[in-house]
Order: sequence, then structure tokens, then C-alpha cells
Amino acid sequence: MVSGVEQMELTSASLAALEKNIRTNLINSLSGFKAANLVGTIDAKGQTNLAVFSSAVHIGAHPPLQGLVFRPDSVSRHTFENIVETGVYTLNHINRDIYSQAHQTAARYDKDISEFDATGLTAEFVKGFAAPYVKEAVIQVGMEYREHHRLEINGTILLIGEVIAVRCPRHVMAADGFLDLESAGTLAIGGLDSYHQTCRLARMSYAKPDKPPRKL
Amino acid sequence: MVSGVEQMELTSASLAALEKNIRTNLINSLSGFKAANLVGTIDAKGQTNLAVFSSAVHIGAHPPLQGLVFRPDSVSRHTFENIVETGVYTLNHINRDIYSQAHQTAARYDKDISEFDATGLTAEFVKGFAAPYVKEAVIQVGMEYREHHRLEINGTILLIGEVIAVRCPRHVMAADGFLDLESAGTLAIGGLDSYHQTCRLARMSYAKPDKPPRKL
Repeated sequence: MVSGVEQMELTSASLAALEKNIRTNLINSLSGFKAANLVGTIDAKGQTNLAVFSSAVHIGAHPPLQGLVFRPDSVSRHTFENIVETGVYTLNHINRDIYSQAHQTAARYDKDISEFDATGLTAEFVKGFAAPYVKEAVIQVGMEYREHHRLEINGTILLIGEVIAVRCPRHVMAADGFLDLESAGTLAIGGLDSYHQTCRLARMSYAKPDKPPRKL
Repeated sequence: MVSGVEQMELTSASLAALEKNIRTNLINSLSGFKAANLVGTIDAKGQTNLAVFSSAVHIGAHPPLQGLVFRPDSVSRHTFENIVETGVYTLNHINRDIYSQAHQTAARYDKDISEFDATGLTAEFVKGFAAPYVKEAVIQVGMEYREHHRLEINGTILLIGEVIAVRCPRHVMAADGFLDLESAGTLAIGGLDSYHQTCRLARMSYAKPDKPPRKL
């Protein structure tokens, strides 16, 4: 703990005693900053869906896999059902120009209302791929569903998909493959509702035991 | 896709054809910004370990659960073994003052060398809890191991723990439970090696279908 400021320490008992909404906000803040994505899907009848997700997580590069955590019985169930039904979905990075609309996709719209229509974001279709991208997103990722795991501990679902398309401006990708998310305007999310731009401190070189840390 | 700049589109075939390190950097960038944490552990003999993780993910608030993704056979295997062995670990948010040392913990040190000693970060112990916190971290989270799942698709492991302690300055927590990660100096990670400060655009109010998006 840092000194010089008043500290607090919450134990299991004090966490359990918190009012439910307060605990939800607090626990959602503990992992740190989160990825800010819009997940685009479509059902078998052609009804599109768009939902903000802060739970995207890297699973592996060879093959290229990304995970998404779904809360049980949440507003995101339409997204989950569509992915399993059609086998495809998109990840679209949220940027400064669209974060307000992106957040609004979390509202509990009826299934027959597309969040694209409700929020004014634009569905962009690519030939041969059923799921809609978000046209306003600078970085777009096409995904194919692979598998999902239900976590018995609380009923959440970890869904895993394979990256089958990466679409972004050419200048965003560095020679070593690194995507400059900051130059693309990608935001980070804090807690359930806080949207943040970023400011790079440094890229660090590959860490080795016999060398001090160095900036790239 | 945005117009006015040269775009690129990588397909499955072009992704598979990329040189391995380039693909690793690229795919690690696709989920968006990631949480920046140091995970502190100890083995049954009292040997401490500290490792940078960008894969922390919120699993649920009731009970309060956080997940960590482990790559198979990676440098993080000591962390995984220690968590299963002792049942406890810590999450410590990486801030501006320690990101260089935090990154250095990714170096492949022998198991008998503590990354605390190697990097100059300070192990902080709390009575009744075996795992070390990082004293220099502003936000510290005490965790108890609950379960893990091996993902057959690529051998990665999703480990789930329950939050049993939250330690931070009192001013960081808002009245509604939200932790102001930005005021605590918590960083975000892009790709494998890029460390970023944040700048808040807004907190957004709870989204409802019949109301336009509003800032808090």
C-alpha cells in the first residue's frame, strides 16, 4: 500500500455486506482496464444485433483465438444465441466517435429491434460473411465460433472463436505486427461505464533475465 | 471501415502465412486494451514469485470472481503452480511508477529467483494471508483459488478465483462502488508490450431503451 493517503481494506465479509449495486460496480473495477468492443451478430432470419462487451480476452495466437465472457441470462443472450446459431460474429473496437452509441447498445431492447437501428451505428456487410461489422469502427475483426464452456461456479459462459479476418487502416499495423490501438483511437473501459482514451508511456523490449528493462 | 485512408484486410490464409512473431504481436492486439496486473504468489517453501499478466477478466460480482488466462508451458507456469499449491494469490494494478519493473517480471528467471528481488519491487505481507502483495501498487486485490478449466482447443487454462480483499486509498472508491482506476494511476496494456496511461472521456449512465445515452 502507498503511504501518505488514507487507506481502506475490504474483507470478504465487508464485500458481502455491500449493497448489491455498489458491489457490482466495485468488483467490475478490480481486474483493471478492459477491452472496449462492439460485438456484431445476425440470426438465421437476418435480424442483426449489436452489443457492447468489455470481456474480450486473448486466448492464443497459433491458431488465432479470442474469448468472450457472457453473463448468464443477461441482455447479451441474443448475441450468444446468434453466434451459436450462425457460427460467426465480429469484434469492432470502440473509438471516441462512437462510445456513446456503443454504451447505449447495453439497453434491454426487444429481440426484433436491431441495436444498429436504435443507436444509429451502421451495419457493414462483407461478401461471404454473414455477421455485420460496425462501419464506424477503425479496427474490425471477423470471428468464427469454435466452442464454449459453461462455468459451473456462477453460470457464466466463456465463448471462444477463431480470428478469420482483420480489417483496419494499413498504417495501424507496425512492421512487427503490433497494432497501434492508440493511433486507431481504440478506447479502454473502467468498471461498467467509464470510457477512456489512452496515452502511451512506452513499448518495452522483450524481457530477458540478464538484461535490464529497455524501451523499444 | 473508415474512408480516406488506405485499408488492409487480412484473411485466415494471410494470417496463417505471417511470420510467427508478427502473428503473435498482431493477434495479441486484437482484443483491444488489456488489464495491467502483477500477480503475486508464494510456494509451499516460501519462495515468492511475481509475474505480469494482461489476461485478467471479470467473471462475476455475486460471488466476486476474477479469471486469469494462462498460456501452456509458458514462463507463467510457476504462478499457476503456486496458486494451486497454496490456494491464494494477489492482483496488483500496474501504475506509471512500476511498469518498467512490471514488464521485466516476464523474463524467464529460474524458479529459485524471486522476481521481487530481481526487479526491485517490494513484497508486502498481510497477517493471515500467505501470498505477497506488491507494496508499490495503489490497488491491491487478495484472491482465493476456486477452480480452473483447461481449454482443449489450445491447451490454455482459465483459472478462477474469488476476491477476498480489496486494498486501496479511500478516495479511489466512489459512493456507488466504482473504482477510479485513472486516479489510482492504473495503466492499460496494448499488445504484448505497450503501456498506456488513460484519460477519461465520460462515465455513462445505465442504458435504457427509451432514453438517449447520457453522461453521468
